Amino acid sequence: MFKIQTDLALETRELVQKGLGREIEGVEVEERKEFEDKIKITKVKINSIKGEAILQKPIGNYITIEADGLRDEDFEVQEQVSKVLADQLESLINVSQKSTVLVVGLGNWNVTPDSLGPKVVSKVLITRHLFEFVPDKIKDRRVRSVCAISPGVLGITGIETSEIISGIVQRIHPDLIIAIDALASRRLERISTAIQITDTGIVPGSGIGNERKGITKDTVGVPVVAIGVPMVVDAAIIANDAIDLLLERLKNETDRSSPLYMLLESIPDEDRFNLIKEVIFPYYGNLFVTPKDIDRIVENISTVIADGINKAIHPEVKENEEYRYVN
Amino acid sequence: MFKIQTDLALETRELVQKGLGREIEGVEVEERKEFEDKIKITKVKINSIKGEAILQKPIGNYITIEADGLRDEDFEVQEQVSKVLADQLESLINVSQKSTVLVVGLGNWNVTPDSLGPKVVSKVLITRHLFEFVPDKIKDRRVRSVCAISPGVLGITGIETSEIISGIVQRIHPDLIIAIDALASRRLERISTAIQITDTGIVPGSGIGNERKGITKDTVGVPVVAIGVPMVVDAAIIANDAIDLLLERLKNETDRSSPLYMLLESIPDEDRFNLIKEVIFPYYGNLFVTPKDIDRIVENISTVIADGINKAIHPEVKENEEYRYVN
Amino acid sequence: MFKIQTDLALETRELVQKGLGREIEGVEVEERKEFEDKIKITKVKINSIKGEAILQKPIGNYITIEADGLRDEDFEVQEQVSKVLADQLESLINVSQKSTVLVVGLGNWNVTPDSLGPKVVSKVLITRHLFEFVPDKIKDRRVRSVCAISPGVLGITGIETSEIISGIVQRIHPDLIIAIDALASRRLERISTAIQITDTGIVPGSGIGNERKGITKDTVGVPVVAIGVPMVVDAAIIANDAIDLLLERLKNETDRSSPLYMLLESIPDEDRFNLIKEVIFPYYGNLFVTPKDIDRIVENISTVIADGINKAIHPEVKENEEYRYVN
Amino acid sequence: MFKIQTDLALETRELVQKGLGREIEGVEVEERKEFEDKIKITKVKINSIKGEAILQKPIGNYITIEADGLRDEDFEVQEQVSKVLADQLESLINVSQKSTVLVVGLGNWNVTPDSLGPKVVSKVLITRHLFEFVPDKIKDRRVRSVCAISPGVLGITGIETSEIISGIVQRIHPDLIIAIDALASRRLERISTAIQITDTGIVPGSGIGNERKGITKDTVGVPVVAIGVPMVVDAAIIANDAIDLLLERLKNETDRSSPLYMLLESIPDEDRFNLIKEVIFPYYGNLFVTPKDIDRIVENISTVIADGINKAIHPEVKENEEYRYVN
Repeated sequence: MFKIQTDLALETRELVQKGLGREIEGVEVEERKEFEDKIKITKVKINSIKGEAILQKPIGNYITIEADGLRDEDFEVQEQVSKVLADQLESLINVSQKSTVLVVGLGNWNVTPDSLGPKVVSKVLITRHLFEFVPDKIKDRRVRSVCAISPGVLGITGIETSEIISGIVQRIHPDLIIAIDALASRRLERISTAIQITDTGIVPGSGIGNERKGITKDTVGVPVVAIGVPMVVDAAIIANDAIDLLLERLKNETDRSSPLYMLLESIPDEDRFNLIKEVIFPYYGNLFVTPKDIDRIVENISTVIADGINKAIHPEVKENEEYRYVN
Repeated sequence: MFKIQTDLALETRELVQKGLGREIEGVEVEERKEFEDKIKITKVKINSIKGEAILQKPIGNYITIEADGLRDEDFEVQEQVSKVLADQLESLINVSQKSTVLVVGLGNWNVTPDSLGPKVVSKVLITRHLFEFVPDKIKDRRVRSVCAISPGVLGITGIETSEIISGIVQRIHPDLIIAIDALASRRLERISTAIQITDTGIVPGSGIGNERKGITKDTVGVPVVAIGVPMVVDAAIIANDAIDLLLERLKNETDRSSPLYMLLESIPDEDRFNLIKEVIFPYYGNLFVTPKDIDRIVENISTVIADGINKAIHPEVKENEEYRYVN
Repeated sequence: MFKIQTDLALETRELVQKGLGREIEGVEVEERKEFEDKIKITKVKINSIKGEAILQKPIGNYITIEADGLRDEDFEVQEQVSKVLADQLESLINVSQKSTVLVVGLGNWNVTPDSLGPKVVSKVLITRHLFEFVPDKIKDRRVRSVCAISPGVLGITGIETSEIISGIVQRIHPDLIIAIDALASRRLERISTAIQITDTGIVPGSGIGNERKGITKDTVGVPVVAIGVPMVVDAAIIANDAIDLLLERLKNETDRSSPLYMLLESIPDEDRFNLIKEVIFPYYGNLFVTPKDIDRIVENISTVIADGINKAIHPEVKENEEYRYVN
Repeated sequence: MFKIQTDLALETRELVQKGLGREIEGVEVEERKEFEDKIKITKVKINSIKGEAILQKPIGNYITIEADGLRDEDFEVQEQVSKVLADQLESLINVSQKSTVLVVGLGNWNVTPDSLGPKVVSKVLITRHLFEFVPDKIKDRRVRSVCAISPGVLGITGIETSEIISGIVQRIHPDLIIAIDALASRRLERISTAIQITDTGIVPGSGIGNERKGITKDTVGVPVVAIGVPMVVDAAIIANDAIDLLLERLKNETDRSSPLYMLLESIPDEDRFNLIKEVIFPYYGNLFVTPKDIDRIVENISTVIADGINKAIHPEVKENEEYRYVN
């Protein structure tokens, strides 16, 4: 059966809530707007096994920052979002002067929409080697120990990402992992306009990188905060949405009591699934939709996220200095 | 109104012919298969203004080489296709020992599916500088003068591609241009499985690079042979195909004489267009569908095309030597 | 005979002046320091054919900005240098609201120390396409028309850089060219610590890119301002300097009247040249010395230069906005 | 004191032997030429603690394949070298149908001469993920399980390379590691013309990547075969060689009994060291010499090595098929 795939808790909740007609049990939601309503922050907290079961996402916090200005290259908005990201990130992590943070850039650097994670890694301030080998060089006691890696994807390395990360964790014992990944959304308008932060890590099947095992506290042994940005929509969703819209329009023009209306109401899931499969033949599950200027988008968003991470990890470093540390 | 965009003459002809129910006037078509039917060669020759008007493509030759093995990483097929490409290319070009060929890699190297042209350029044997500055080094008299450039796209340079190429042509006076471009197909199964060669050059609106002016004999002053490979499908086509398929299925279940059937038969073009626009909102015309492993695909196909070009330009160089000249 | 190659007028002048023991006729020199003496600005003005003949550089202005902080990753110094660069650049160029500027990134993007020009191009704000195709989008009347290209090097394209640039100039008629190039210095301490700006363009034999023809007002028809930063030293200079130092030390330990002293004083140029050739065998003229962290250096300096160019071209845009326009 | 740094056992042995005037105890040397003397193979076997102490390299086998044709782009020689490399590699490794090989590409992909390892990794046939997830796809039972990673360098990740590799080894338990690294030679003519294979792994201080801990059977727990190619010479060696040559020349012109001769004979090591430091000021140990066309060199040699590795790991796959598996 066709099942909408989305990596955003926000979207799963929208879908479920739309079905239920009311808020979901075991899930707390809090919304607010900032910066003249240009930035929207939604916190979805799954706080029980019930919520977990309904939303099919693990217990934990899912914070989504939305801003159309991220796509529209509104630099003022981008700067504000990086601050909001830093604040929200700080609310989920717990780093002290002595902490070591491992930043992980997931995804395939050779495929533009999937290269977000590696791009962020290349812009994050790396300091751990200074702490290890030339501690005297760390004149600024407000700077903390940060290391980073972009492990690549299965097709490039032949090794599961989670194995690489687990192995490194066992050797260097970071206190926290921040993992960045390009996500799949179910809505085109969320491409590059939403940033999700969650303290549940990366769970199986997520992202367009399709790592089979997750990167979570359970699998790697240290807390994992994941930052994800939708960069693609599964092509099957485009076909599915076209079917929905056409059915809706036909129903509007049809008498509710006519047999036609019944026909339109009752397309079996399997038929729908077969239709979709036919539309996207010979691909399935490996075909994505992305905007033409995805290179510019990845460049901009990766700067916003790297800035946010730098601010959150070294909170005592002043803002304009901060920028100065990053390439 | 929604109009299917395709860069393949083969597909325009399919669409028109399907409408007409017969072959198109002013168009000659020739098909044949090779290599145990694993490679199909279709020659569409538009030989009159009538054909030009109907197919909306200029008078000239359009040769398409199709092989599923190109996508499936069947290396034997890939090798055969590079030979067929060399043969077909030779049939359209006319280079002598004294000729200079300018190879142009169109597209944006920062966006994976659009990076085919620049990738091919990086694999073509460059010799013109040896002819110009160290002619003694060209011991092998069978090698010809080849130069190449990847001009980038408008968003990167701020200059139209055709202006850059025209300018260079005016300075170095090549005898022939071979331009490589990633194309948009109207069928997913043609992504990376079809190679089109045409002696009409690159015409406006073609390719996902969207150069506004063409690169043709008219615009740059020398013959232009274009080699294109579909790498994406416009996301609007996915929506359109889903609508078509659903309508078809509903009609199959409806009495031909019922009012419902009439409704399904008569969706106005404008309504259909609005539906599609709604599905792919907030994008239009800038949203493409591409397979997840597009990096591997571009790597493979660019080698096939570069090999074919090298063989066609230096036909007297033996095959295994040829490979040796290319990085 | 061994002749010290340097692309810096500052260094040619040092060498000549050291020989003469006094200032050179036909050459005006002005020095000043800024930002707590952390930045040194030297203006060498060659104002006569005599000066031209002596310094072997064309009549014109050569401004060098020196700051050790550029190498030491002192971000405050880097920011100040980008402002000084903008000021000095403005003093040499003459752009109005209606001007179009073509930025040219010389050098080979595949060789790290030679990739400075292409890196700068990727960070410069490109606007010309907006002026051409969507002039309404240029809401900010203080922004000017800028386009850019990285033409590659002879070994990659088979075409001389000057031919590519001349061709483009003939088509798009810019009012000014700003060309960025990695230079060869004769002193290791100048690698990445000096920025030379000159209104004489790029002259033959300059840079490590070795373009045979220059890019000057004479060859391309529009004013050319060149910005260069030493990124390498010719390996022959290391050998030469070692010979000089050893001779000096031996002379210090030798009686001035002894035959030995005479021997040390009188090493013929040819012998010295042969020694050097032997040291750097089997290379000559194609072997360079560069620091191990050249990737970090190029990343930092390219940002400083792109910032300086953006500030100089759009002088009325406020500083913090400016940054906002650039990726 | 100035100490010549070289990563080639061949060169250490040359230096020591030159001093001794005879073969070194505890070291076996075997030389032969192939392919019309165009390829020279030297096996240095250190077989005792004595040999180890003298050569300052661990007990083990050091095979060097030398061919000027590697630099001169002689494609026939390159093809032969890849076969010789495969044979020699096979003589040192012991892989069965069930083995898993981990290929490690050491070095910094952002610095051209140091990017050899990562380039090789991108050209090696990766199969382990097929064995793990779709074993049915491995129709060809002659193909073996290969995975690969380019761990980056300390300045990029903040993590020591050996930690990353050890961590991965502990998770995926390969039977063998093949590590590729760009080396520093003490002779310019060996840049890109010599390939060293050793079963002793990567030892501290080796390579231009300067990983502080080694990657050896001791540190990572599985056998490590290292393949290295000189890509740079330390700039200090150029200065040192110039000093040596000048002293030699001066001695030739001086009476052996004169005080001058004594002076020339007796330059203290410390003085020499100070001279060299002065020549390469303000750098020390971080300044390298490399040819201008290093991009072309790395491209060619990485193909030779990847071909050799593919042939050695899957020895039963026929030669022309082999090539077909690799991008």
